Amino acid sequence: MSLVVIGSVAFDALETPFGKTDKIIGGAATYISLSASYSLKPVKLVAVVGDDFPQSDILLLEEHGVDVEGLQVKPGEKSFFWSGIYSKDLNSRETLVTELNVLADFDPILPDSYQDCKYLMLGNLAPQVQRLVIQRLVNRPKLIVMDTMNFWMDIALDDLIATIEMVDVLSINDEEARQLSGEYSLVKAARKILDMGPKYLIIKKGEHGALLFHAQKQKLKIFYAPALPLEEVFDPTGAGDTFAGGFIGHLAATDDISFDNMKRAVIHGSAMASFCVEKFGTERLLNLKPEEIEAREKQFADLVEVVPATAVQNV
Amino acid sequence: MSLVVIGSVAFDALETPFGKTDKIIGGAATYISLSASYSLKPVKLVAVVGDDFPQSDILLLEEHGVDVEGLQVKPGEKSFFWSGIYSKDLNSRETLVTELNVLADFDPILPDSYQDCKYLMLGNLAPQVQRLVIQRLVNRPKLIVMDTMNFWMDIALDDLIATIEMVDVLSINDEEARQLSGEYSLVKAARKILDMGPKYLIIKKGEHGALLFHAQKQKLKIFYAPALPLEEVFDPTGAGDTFAGGFIGHLAATDDISFDNMKRAVIHGSAMASFCVEKFGTERLLNLKPEEIEAREKQFADLVEVVPATAVQNV
Repeated sequence: MSLVVIGSVAFDALETPFGKTDKIIGGAATYISLSASYSLKPVKLVAVVGDDFPQSDILLLEEHGVDVEGLQVKPGEKSFFWSGIYSKDLNSRETLVTELNVLADFDPILPDSYQDCKYLMLGNLAPQVQRLVIQRLVNRPKLIVMDTMNFWMDIALDDLIATIEMVDVLSINDEEARQLSGEYSLVKAARKILDMGPKYLIIKKGEHGALLFHAQKQKLKIFYAPALPLEEVFDPTGAGDTFAGGFIGHLAATDDISFDNMKRAVIHGSAMASFCVEKFGTERLLNLKPEEIEAREKQFADLVEVVPATAVQNV
Repeated sequence: MSLVVIGSVAFDALETPFGKTDKIIGGAATYISLSASYSLKPVKLVAVVGDDFPQSDILLLEEHGVDVEGLQVKPGEKSFFWSGIYSKDLNSRETLVTELNVLADFDPILPDSYQDCKYLMLGNLAPQVQRLVIQRLVNRPKLIVMDTMNFWMDIALDDLIATIEMVDVLSINDEEARQLSGEYSLVKAARKILDMGPKYLIIKKGEHGALLFHAQKQKLKIFYAPALPLEEVFDPTGAGDTFAGGFIGHLAATDDISFDNMKRAVIHGSAMASFCVEKFGTERLLNLKPEEIEAREKQFADLVEVVPATAVQNV
């Protein structure tokens, strides 16, 4: 099932209470693609970098089953660069540097071989660029998942709403859901956002897990996937993108977009995200073994498991 | 299975974004007792009020199966009074008035008929008073659950630690767990707090649910009970106490303190708390029907239910 991912491929320089990095590979589409690659290959990437982007990092993506035909390399230009420093509790971060560079006038060109796209993941980017990708696909994908952030709510709300209207699943965090809807209650926020067009809404709550909402004839179905309580969070960068990549990767690999399978996709995405935060940047996503992922998913299942008292009596 | 509850019985005056109340019945032991009464009766109450406390409120407790033999009424004195105002999002509150009154020199006297206590719930109170109750019971109860708050960490830490050492289950919120342990990671916090004596730790996370921890030969068992996402939270006062009452009420009624049953007790407590916040004060706890509680518990189960993909294939 062909999966196309669009988003930033970039340099990050990170500082957490545990250390700091020089420029390392980052960007929404990088995390999404690496995460999804554990579910299916190839992951067809649409992104842009400058010629400062090392060939070795492009090779790294290819080695993980990422199709880079749609990765534009702009001669004489520089890659998107973001630098940030996290608070002691890792719950907030301050942006030190944002250099848009090649991203400033990114024109997402889709190779012909991407036109078989059945699953489309719109990683965080300017909403008009996300929309352009939908418009350039000859056939509407079976499922479009969109991630975005508060930044676009602040500066491009109309564009954002026009794009949200076109997607099936929107993935945002709790603060963003509140900002977008103007409602504090996440249930009320979900109703309003689902009225904007998407059939499904994922609200990411970081260490508190994720909620999946789906409105069916005015009745709201809710699934709550708690996050695994972790001994140590090393670097939260990319956790949300890794979640999204795991989510759509699972759906594309199983080609099943039922609500039941979306729940499993949320659990798989949460498990992938729980790996991501264990090391700096993408490091932990580069060498995961299938049995590690399976064991982690089992931990998520165990975390909420309740044996009904009656089940014991009925044995 | 005899259940004894100690804590404050008091007046509250509340203001939330949805309205305000005059002095209404409140206090940790009130919420705990009412909540537990849906699991078993009688609930043997140890508390103190002044003679300003209306007979009708005492009758109300009795009508709900609360044994008030251990409720001292101090002539010429005034009941504990707390007044507070909640922030718009209900996530924080400001204390306007705290009048200790009869609580200032509360001597918790246990009637002889309370000496059969098998389950003891220490609601939030000065830790030296909580400890006194344990010491005054001739036989150590089968299970002691303790609730407390950051206030005692600030002003009576040594007393608090000495009391925590004597209990089986400690129930606190996430901020309090972090303050008590000095650890930001709740997993690390749980390890440290379980080293202080309790066999079980409940960390309440409000709208994000509750965690139950149990250390077994250095291995940490974790259960995550998400909170039900609610359309409307009307008044969060007493939610933590209602949770605790439901928790110990379920354990006492089933007389089963296995980890599996504690999980069910956490779900039951969470369900009771989700009712509590729907109206002002204790109002919603006064007329709950068993089938309402059962339906709510079912909603909690549905919220996290994932059907494994293999289960479908095996049918």
